[in-house]
Amino acid sequence: MSQKILFQCDYNEGAHPLIMERLLASNMEQTPGYSEDHYCRSAADKIRKACEDDTLAVHFLVGGTQTNLTVVDAGLRSHQGVLCAVSGHINVHETGAVEACGHKVLGLPSDDGKISAEQIENYCHGHFTNASFEHMVQPGMVYISNPTELGTIYSAEELKAIYEVCKKYDLYLFLDGARLGYGLTAPDNDLTLPLLAKYTDAFYIGGTKVGALFGEAIVISNESLKKDFRYLIKQRGGMLAKGRLLGIQFDTLFTDDLYFEISKHAITLAEELRAVMAAKGYTFNAPNHTNQIFVVMPDEHLKKLSEKFEYSYDAQVDETRSCVRFCTSWATKDENVKALIEAIESL
Amino acid sequence: MSQKILFQCDYNEGAHPLIMERLLASNMEQTPGYSEDHYCRSAADKIRKACEDDTLAVHFLVGGTQTNLTVVDAGLRSHQGVLCAVSGHINVHETGAVEACGHKVLGLPSDDGKISAEQIENYCHGHFTNASFEHMVQPGMVYISNPTELGTIYSAEELKAIYEVCKKYDLYLFLDGARLGYGLTAPDNDLTLPLLAKYTDAFYIGGTKVGALFGEAIVISNESLKKDFRYLIKQRGGMLAKGRLLGIQFDTLFTDDLYFEISKHAITLAEELRAVMAAKGYTFNAPNHTNQIFVVMPDEHLKKLSEKFEYSYDAQVDETRSCVRFCTSWATKDENVKALIEAIESL
Amino acid sequence: MSQKILFQCDYNEGAHPLIMERLLASNMEQTPGYSEDHYCRSAADKIRKACEDDTLAVHFLVGGTQTNLTVVDAGLRSHQGVLCAVSGHINVHETGAVEACGHKVLGLPSDDGKISAEQIENYCHGHFTNASFEHMVQPGMVYISNPTELGTIYSAEELKAIYEVCKKYDLYLFLDGARLGYGLTAPDNDLTLPLLAKYTDAFYIGGTKVGALFGEAIVISNESLKKDFRYLIKQRGGMLAKGRLLGIQFDTLFTDDLYFEISKHAITLAEELRAVMAAKGYTFNAPNHTNQIFVVMPDEHLKKLSEKFEYSYDAQVDETRSCVRFCTSWATKDENVKALIEAIESL
Amino acid sequence: MSQKILFQCDYNEGAHPLIMERLLASNMEQTPGYSEDHYCRSAADKIRKACEDDTLAVHFLVGGTQTNLTVVDAGLRSHQGVLCAVSGHINVHETGAVEACGHKVLGLPSDDGKISAEQIENYCHGHFTNASFEHMVQPGMVYISNPTELGTIYSAEELKAIYEVCKKYDLYLFLDGARLGYGLTAPDNDLTLPLLAKYTDAFYIGGTKVGALFGEAIVISNESLKKDFRYLIKQRGGMLAKGRLLGIQFDTLFTDDLYFEISKHAITLAEELRAVMAAKGYTFNAPNHTNQIFVVMPDEHLKKLSEKFEYSYDAQVDETRSCVRFCTSWATKDENVKALIEAIESL
Repeated sequence: MSQKILFQCDYNEGAHPLIMERLLASNMEQTPGYSEDHYCRSAADKIRKACEDDTLAVHFLVGGTQTNLTVVDAGLRSHQGVLCAVSGHINVHETGAVEACGHKVLGLPSDDGKISAEQIENYCHGHFTNASFEHMVQPGMVYISNPTELGTIYSAEELKAIYEVCKKYDLYLFLDGARLGYGLTAPDNDLTLPLLAKYTDAFYIGGTKVGALFGEAIVISNESLKKDFRYLIKQRGGMLAKGRLLGIQFDTLFTDDLYFEISKHAITLAEELRAVMAAKGYTFNAPNHTNQIFVVMPDEHLKKLSEKFEYSYDAQVDETRSCVRFCTSWATKDENVKALIEAIESL
Repeated sequence: MSQKILFQCDYNEGAHPLIMERLLASNMEQTPGYSEDHYCRSAADKIRKACEDDTLAVHFLVGGTQTNLTVVDAGLRSHQGVLCAVSGHINVHETGAVEACGHKVLGLPSDDGKISAEQIENYCHGHFTNASFEHMVQPGMVYISNPTELGTIYSAEELKAIYEVCKKYDLYLFLDGARLGYGLTAPDNDLTLPLLAKYTDAFYIGGTKVGALFGEAIVISNESLKKDFRYLIKQRGGMLAKGRLLGIQFDTLFTDDLYFEISKHAITLAEELRAVMAAKGYTFNAPNHTNQIFVVMPDEHLKKLSEKFEYSYDAQVDETRSCVRFCTSWATKDENVKALIEAIESL
Repeated sequence: MSQKILFQCDYNEGAHPLIMERLLASNMEQTPGYSEDHYCRSAADKIRKACEDDTLAVHFLVGGTQTNLTVVDAGLRSHQGVLCAVSGHINVHETGAVEACGHKVLGLPSDDGKISAEQIENYCHGHFTNASFEHMVQPGMVYISNPTELGTIYSAEELKAIYEVCKKYDLYLFLDGARLGYGLTAPDNDLTLPLLAKYTDAFYIGGTKVGALFGEAIVISNESLKKDFRYLIKQRGGMLAKGRLLGIQFDTLFTDDLYFEISKHAITLAEELRAVMAAKGYTFNAPNHTNQIFVVMPDEHLKKLSEKFEYSYDAQVDETRSCVRFCTSWATKDENVKALIEAIESL
Repeated sequence: MSQKILFQCDYNEGAHPLIMERLLASNMEQTPGYSEDHYCRSAADKIRKACEDDTLAVHFLVGGTQTNLTVVDAGLRSHQGVLCAVSGHINVHETGAVEACGHKVLGLPSDDGKISAEQIENYCHGHFTNASFEHMVQPGMVYISNPTELGTIYSAEELKAIYEVCKKYDLYLFLDGARLGYGLTAPDNDLTLPLLAKYTDAFYIGGTKVGALFGEAIVISNESLKKDFRYLIKQRGGMLAKGRLLGIQFDTLFTDDLYFEISKHAITLAEELRAVMAAKGYTFNAPNHTNQIFVVMPDEHLKKLSEKFEYSYDAQVDETRSCVRFCTSWATKDENVKALIEAIESL
């Protein structure tokens, strides 16, 4: 049986070879645990430098759900909830991890995975002017992801506007960057790490989907959120005994711009695929230029493709067509993209 | 300044005089605490008899939010959530009490405050057939209210259908009866206490809004839910030291059908009001025959009425009209309804 | 069958007749809900006046466990716990209500129900100098009760010392006053309401055990704790729809010093009982001058007494003697104490 | 500056070379995520085989705190707590992770880190016969660790007795095996994996401290605990996207008895150290034959040793001596032990 080529997500492989090399080289070195080692210090320094702000707190966690629940819980009092797009990862795909910490996720309507400053303004204004406001969950944080779950991205202007409304209503702004590299290297992007550090209270730089075996680097600029953060990492199960594994990986990713280089690779391949798909007449849901392609294709074509390729299923669009997701990543091989392109063109 | 007449809710007064009389008569009697007294036993017996099922567990709590959070938490494991109408009280007006216990409220779309067996079926089917089902909150309970927050009611057939789909997917069905009396005495109602006991796993009989100073009687038929329930009442702060106060009140309400008689009073007055409003050409949102009237009126009329009457504001409907709520209750005086009718007719 | 005389607790009866009278008088008056009525405003004003501080926030809740869990949860972040005596009510008799809100109760050893400033100092010093401090629950609040669960009381000097160490380590100090009246009127007491308001961040004045049908008045001096407190009351199920019932009761208790007068009644009777018991040669556990008597008596004597009187059992002391609790209260009848005294003397 | 030799814990290095080799070999292979890959299936099969029970559920998580909180929360209803030694890891060193899930940790006194069937029997009997049982946390699970936090181990007979009392009172028995290899290969051990599977409801096989980069394998025999367990892993942040990393590591550890072989290495070196220490006249706290040595040494000796070696500090024993911990592990080099022995002998 020949193995299919997997395009269904961006975590099908291990880590970038340079990371594996350094993990191997350091394997029998003795270091103290819990991220109190020189690798973590070095990685944090490099991230602060890339963000052009040496007052930032940087912490390393293993995965995205853990990171999200830890940050959200760190920022909210019991009666507060977190605003996000209805399609937000914390609202849909984390088995209620935020609610398990006691907080309601307040979903805002969204077609493309994004929410706007205006939506937040309206929600907060509505809440604080409602006669029964104390009987309702108080918004205490805004969660956005960039790229979103649908692959779309925020502009610098949009982010700044959201941040400003957050400050107006005393909300934290937290940005989930599980796929951050694929957003920052998209052709239409104008965000940068320094802008993210400036216009959020906390954000994270995703490693799991961008070159690492696992790992997310949380960057916190807000002083209140910084306080006692390591207690919360420990309590929520996110403090890795051999924390250096995270330090080594992020130190490697933030050496010689590796993080951005390997992200660009995924974008280049995704854009190639999109061009071929568009030429074929397929349309896109939540059109974007990042590494996730939500493409609407005839079911017959999909059936044929699925003999050799894995994609992930999104939704039935009409009687003959479905929307599916193809992902590229830092690890995607040119030859696999070529194979997929040929398969599409021959449909 | 003369006091306005209040129609904005159904808890503006104290308790039915018969209840006050019995509280007074028993005031210096010594009884053991925590509802382990003869009044609570008697009240529970009367409720079981009214439900025609002597295996039911009956518990008395002080208020609705407390009751809802205790029952929901009692029934769910950590990864489970509770399905309800988006307008459900637990989803909107309990400051995230259910989430504070760790559980997501899963809102289903609803125009009239009700949800259907079909909606539940579709949600559950969708969940358990989703490839990522373990990444999503598992539905573990259905919460409905009768009357709903919009005053509408379920038919016996609708309730039975909901119960059956709950059993199919191993969900608890919990019915919030904060205004139960006003549902069971509505002219178009065909539900009864025995049917409620049969077609739910737990429901509660609201006292706060129907004749008592405070108090809700939880009725549990499901054996798993019955287990250790008093521990949970205590933990969530709902175990009243002088529990007999609840026993005395429900014993009185369930003597000589007082609960139903005083409910009918509210319905009669509400129907009178509705007739006058309809004659005036006003329309109704979520039309119903219970004690809550959601009526759409010209803002000018409302302005005039508000000089002498309090109602609660619901929503702006168009440029010149708003939807507001008028409530009657067991305590509403005929003369006050008469005054309101005259005021409306003279607009 | 003749009814026994109950001395096992201080909540066997209803409410002081003056309270019942006012509840009755106001019964059909219409007021807005949720403690936003003139009775609650008046009661809060009287309490602020009695505390000699008009900046205090005052809230009314139904019961003690609810009050404790709401205050503790309001003050702590997720990684913080609350220090208290191992015998503290929140540690032993609230079915883990504090833990159910996510917080560890950190028990300190205590023989008499009290803890000292020195114990708190040592615990905090130990925590913050421990190499693994982030792996341990951070103390964020101190909970004491006055009188304690064993009937003992704090002196003004002791309270001040505890408050000062709390401020040194940035902990909230919360005092549970479920039986506060019986502490403040004890012959050896030197605390006052103004001192309590000054040397705690929050405390509550117990009504349930001191003259009310139910109800506890929370008094908050700390600005951070004041913030958004009503949201938390609602979320935890403590917001009474007909909040005026609490207002009326506390307004009555704080009119013409009723709260203190009825408390003194209980103390006078308890001291009479203690004198007789001491004369009989019985000894006391956690000796005190409040309304709870923990007396060590021969099992034979207890057996005889239990034919006519209820007390609560504490512990077997040796082969022939047990420690039991007798309580007096605002409601205890002189004739019942006389009967008990006669019974003891005749043993 | 020359680096000190670290003996303070058993997670100072990376992973066994065979694991690193396989991670490297599989690095660019494509597999599905979330432990639904062939490596995880193979590892689970090998563990089931080693436990001689093919009905066991096996799950892989990243770390110990996460594993503990997920299992404890999976097994308890809200009003239930978990019994363990006061020195238990969940009671002391997990920043209240269990409480953050809503459950009280019920500490039982212990000098050597172990608890007995008799202690559990007495606690449960006391709880269920207490008149106020519903006001107290109900024991719902027993947590033990083997080896314990102090390095001691349970005999098969002790474990069986504990399991039997758990079944008598309907408690789950959960065994934390963070250092399981070092227990099962101790010279005085008579436990085996099949016995652990038989006499617990769930236990875990620690990888982080025994040869892996990270990872713990949960083994569940109880059917109720098995149900929906992956939902809970996801919700609590423990579901690793590239789950195969865990599968590969445990597959390697359970191939050709590697797990036991490398464990024995640590034991051999620890026993050598203990012999030298005993010969020197030092005494041991919680004497044991596993990889943790709690040795009482003169402070002067410690000061001298600390120039070249890291150990972890436990407690001051008297004016001139302290108890400290030296750990060996799968990774400890013979030459380092030799250096330490020489240093001790020369004191």
